[in-house]
Amino acid sequence: MKENTNRPEKVSLRELELPGDLKKLSLSQCNSLCKEIRSILISTVSKTGGHLASNLGAVELTMAIHRNFNSPEDKIIWDVGHQAYTHKILTGRLDRFATLRQEDGISGFPKPEESVHDSFISGHSSTSVSVACGIAEAMKLQGKDNYAVAVIGDGAMTGGMFYEAMNNCGKDRQSNLIVILNDNNMSISKSVGAVSKYLRTLRSTEKYYNTKAAVKKGLKKIPIVGNSVQKGIKNVKDSVRSNILENSTMFEDMGFIYLGPVNGHSLSELEDVIHTAKHYHCPVFIHVNTVKGKGYAPAEQNPGEYHGISRFDIATGNPEVSAEDSYSTVFGKELVKIAGTDNRICAITAAMKYGTGLQYFRAAYPERFYDVGIAEQHAVTFAGGLASMGMIPVFAVYSTFLQRAYDQLIHDVAIGKLHVILGVDRAGIVGEDGETHQGLFDVPMLTSIPNTVIYSPSCYEELRMCMKKAIYADKGLCAIRYPRGSEKSRQLLSRLGTEYLFMREGGSDTLIITYGRLCNEAYEAQETLKKEDISCDILKLTKIFPLDKGLADEMKKYKHIVFFEESSGSGSISEKVGDMLAEISYRGEYSRVCANGFVKQASAKSCLDKLGLTSAKMTEFIRSRSNANGKT
Amino acid sequence: MKENTNRPEKVSLRELELPGDLKKLSLSQCNSLCKEIRSILISTVSKTGGHLASNLGAVELTMAIHRNFNSPEDKIIWDVGHQAYTHKILTGRLDRFATLRQEDGISGFPKPEESVHDSFISGHSSTSVSVACGIAEAMKLQGKDNYAVAVIGDGAMTGGMFYEAMNNCGKDRQSNLIVILNDNNMSISKSVGAVSKYLRTLRSTEKYYNTKAAVKKGLKKIPIVGNSVQKGIKNVKDSVRSNILENSTMFEDMGFIYLGPVNGHSLSELEDVIHTAKHYHCPVFIHVNTVKGKGYAPAEQNPGEYHGISRFDIATGNPEVSAEDSYSTVFGKELVKIAGTDNRICAITAAMKYGTGLQYFRAAYPERFYDVGIAEQHAVTFAGGLASMGMIPVFAVYSTFLQRAYDQLIHDVAIGKLHVILGVDRAGIVGEDGETHQGLFDVPMLTSIPNTVIYSPSCYEELRMCMKKAIYADKGLCAIRYPRGSEKSRQLLSRLGTEYLFMREGGSDTLIITYGRLCNEAYEAQETLKKEDISCDILKLTKIFPLDKGLADEMKKYKHIVFFEESSGSGSISEKVGDMLAEISYRGEYSRVCANGFVKQASAKSCLDKLGLTSAKMTEFIRSRSNANGKT
Repeated sequence: MKENTNRPEKVSLRELELPGDLKKLSLSQCNSLCKEIRSILISTVSKTGGHLASNLGAVELTMAIHRNFNSPEDKIIWDVGHQAYTHKILTGRLDRFATLRQEDGISGFPKPEESVHDSFISGHSSTSVSVACGIAEAMKLQGKDNYAVAVIGDGAMTGGMFYEAMNNCGKDRQSNLIVILNDNNMSISKSVGAVSKYLRTLRSTEKYYNTKAAVKKGLKKIPIVGNSVQKGIKNVKDSVRSNILENSTMFEDMGFIYLGPVNGHSLSELEDVIHTAKHYHCPVFIHVNTVKGKGYAPAEQNPGEYHGISRFDIATGNPEVSAEDSYSTVFGKELVKIAGTDNRICAITAAMKYGTGLQYFRAAYPERFYDVGIAEQHAVTFAGGLASMGMIPVFAVYSTFLQRAYDQLIHDVAIGKLHVILGVDRAGIVGEDGETHQGLFDVPMLTSIPNTVIYSPSCYEELRMCMKKAIYADKGLCAIRYPRGSEKSRQLLSRLGTEYLFMREGGSDTLIITYGRLCNEAYEAQETLKKEDISCDILKLTKIFPLDKGLADEMKKYKHIVFFEESSGSGSISEKVGDMLAEISYRGEYSRVCANGFVKQASAKSCLDKLGLTSAKMTEFIRSRSNANGKT
Repeated sequence: MKENTNRPEKVSLRELELPGDLKKLSLSQCNSLCKEIRSILISTVSKTGGHLASNLGAVELTMAIHRNFNSPEDKIIWDVGHQAYTHKILTGRLDRFATLRQEDGISGFPKPEESVHDSFISGHSSTSVSVACGIAEAMKLQGKDNYAVAVIGDGAMTGGMFYEAMNNCGKDRQSNLIVILNDNNMSISKSVGAVSKYLRTLRSTEKYYNTKAAVKKGLKKIPIVGNSVQKGIKNVKDSVRSNILENSTMFEDMGFIYLGPVNGHSLSELEDVIHTAKHYHCPVFIHVNTVKGKGYAPAEQNPGEYHGISRFDIATGNPEVSAEDSYSTVFGKELVKIAGTDNRICAITAAMKYGTGLQYFRAAYPERFYDVGIAEQHAVTFAGGLASMGMIPVFAVYSTFLQRAYDQLIHDVAIGKLHVILGVDRAGIVGEDGETHQGLFDVPMLTSIPNTVIYSPSCYEELRMCMKKAIYADKGLCAIRYPRGSEKSRQLLSRLGTEYLFMREGGSDTLIITYGRLCNEAYEAQETLKKEDISCDILKLTKIFPLDKGLADEMKKYKHIVFFEESSGSGSISEKVGDMLAEISYRGEYSRVCANGFVKQASAKSCLDKLGLTSAKMTEFIRSRSNANGKT
């Protein structure tokens, strides 16, 4: 589209050069584009799965941002990135949008290697203001007069990093930093905590900002306050006191200009407020009210369900839900059972009640259930506090998010030998969410903490056994790690255990070591190889750390040992076993197959295959070794 | 002391059963005890070194707390614990107080194994409200009507955990939780950020709380607001709006009752406000103004210098300052030099400007210097933001505090391959600060992050070389780890390098591998052993990760390899070398000497000796192996 004149009233995304052309359009044309975008979002996510409700809520906001800022010179930072689908569509990725979250397709999160318009990675929450603060400072040092714009959801505001960043941005420095709160009163699940309650109060008032009035006032560098309130304040004689009162939102207390709340589905309101914000040239906080799921009735009615969703039927809104259990639901249900006979058990989640299967606990024992928001640091130290009083706290958390609480695990739990249980969900490969979400670092992280015990069950029944063991037989910090999704149908229930188990073929000099869901892959490999007359034994670990020292002597009997591990390799169990073998002067051959480096998005099966961790790849690995060495 | 009557006006700590007897004393007796305590603090710390200024500021506050709460049934949680010296004196540890921070002596931080009155470990900052929240919840579940009291400094309020915890405590739950802000406007160094500025405004008003008036009003469950302000608010018609105005401190916005500020050196004001707070039975925030260093002129005048101090002369106040350089100052000065010719270099500290030697950078390039407060998470992501714009951020941070930013290092730096430099100060044994502060986990932590490069120089000159290498030759996340204190006089400058170096004796079949300051211990061991006709070679690593794969083939030539490492063993370099050796089917003997578990307080030399990492212990280790195997 080259011309600004004589354009047809209705335009379509495909005719436009994006994002530049957006600025040439009328508001009504933009509104019609918003409709088109919503329909693309719904139809794509219905096929690929992904984050729907938050994206439907951010369509007009994203449009207003791209009409009023110049990306990529101005940097837009999305927090958490899963609200950035419209941004992707509006920055030249419409053609590839159908590949969302697929192997080699576009990411479900902003990714600089994908587009110059994605200024920063953001798969984890609450990072955007820190990033924007860094970018704004760099712009200042480099003499650039561009803007750094962080778009943060109300859920992400529960993370402490947000506050650390606000505290640093709100100092008296001049900077073109704008923080936009996309407030839908419901991030992943219902937002929690006092700040959320506080936002609810702010949302329901028009005290702070009346768009047109503010613009008319000529953009003075003072907070814009509604008239009636100003009158009230005038009656307060003490100037110090009135100063405190005038600065009465939290955000103003932290040094920001506060503008809002505005209707996040009105392009004109949004454009006015952004226009105003741009003129301050100092940290501004814009409060935008949006409706999660906006424009798609099933998502508006059940925004929680449509937050992250699998494929679904557009007409009915019904997601492809498998009624079957997952590791998460089994964990959640078993915890309810244990808590039924032990009132010391408490359950904690960091904004992942459904994801971790703790909804059952919430229903059964609400007084012992704690959703702390996206606040993993607090969750762990809070658990430490509970444990110091003799309670038994169980924190169910995704592997990748547990990274946020490394110091707290060491300092507030392990040093004090407090008995805290971690349900490490989504451990190992998670698939479509890609690099930022793979659960590949919990093993290196947790094994570096002295006296930690780690289990990795290979099926539901073992998960239940490990939970009891961790809660009642072990002391200190205990973690149970289990993958996303369901157990494999092939359960081999006769081979259950909470320590380790050798599955011997008899006479083999090759040993496979593995743990977790890979055990099932190893069984299959063992059977396949058997048919080829290649025999190998399996050492299945359930308690993966610390390892029984006696195991090394058993391992030593084999000429060839290969360890298949669903973890990042550096600091992993297979590395520790390698070291153990060196320390007992093992004379055979030792190999490890595990992840090295970050693992890109694809189906979990495809990721595992590329890492060499499927039964087919295991078979191939052993077969080639066996052929090289002469059959065993 | 058994009697409440006929007591002499003046009492001494040694006559009392503590803390119980405190409640039987008059305020004037308590004030005289406060004097006695100050004199003990000054004389002890002048001999042992430690945290002085913050403790001098908290004497009356601690006294008031123990007179108004019943420890250990009521739980007092000190944040950061270095303000707890008076608490230690008042809870039965006066006799042992002279052993402060010494081997087998009492800890400089609260430590439950030391006393039932120390309810939780607290060496790292900003944890207290999370702990108190957990304890208060446990009390509620257990039907106990006791109090959980967090005492937090204004510096600790810059940490995001504080905010996560406040957000969770301030929900509408009933709990006996009291947070006391010990506000001395200067925690470690000058407090930073918008919240600090905000507190300054609050400090200078008496708006919120007039002690006597509040008590007279009968402790209504509403915030207590000064009269003139109430009048002002009455004129605001809209009830929603006035509601916002009434809740106008940040702490009220977060759901707390706010009381204060009160004079933290007036026992009567403190007792009144605590008395009031206890009656609310819901989260209360008490704002106490104190003077850091109170009662000792040199400390009042230079509270920063007396925060953590070495031994000093009481009469003059002069600390035993060594004029000599340390790894920290060398790092700081070299960074200034590099920044002089490269305006992309930025320096970041998390409230440790002096500790990390960045005061020189601050003086030379204030516009590129950032003290973010106790906010390591923000520091790293902020660095990521800077790096994304082509700046070269250098974050100097103590090893133990870097633990706070594990997720940010992965998510906001490593995945995006951003070039961020870490100066990991206090890496390895730090000594007297004990378990919570030893720098033993940075190696496991950083090596678990893909594509990270880590250096460990063995002297100042190597530190300088590594800095240049990391900044200009490497990409992505680069860390340089160096110990607390000074380089050993024995520098062996001819053996400098940024990769690795074999120091061969010729014909030896024993290899010592080590890095960092232990290289000097290894040289000494090598020389001592040489005199005994035991020869051994040394492999000195400077770039410790990733290791050159070719090294393993060199190592393989030795019959005996021993790796001495100043790191926690699980996930360490020596473990990786063990695994490397196993993977190349090494046939010799491999041993590792490193830390396993947490390391208790003692001098650094004593800690290293116990770990087997001094030249004497290395000599002994090699000698005994050598004797067992026949001389080499």
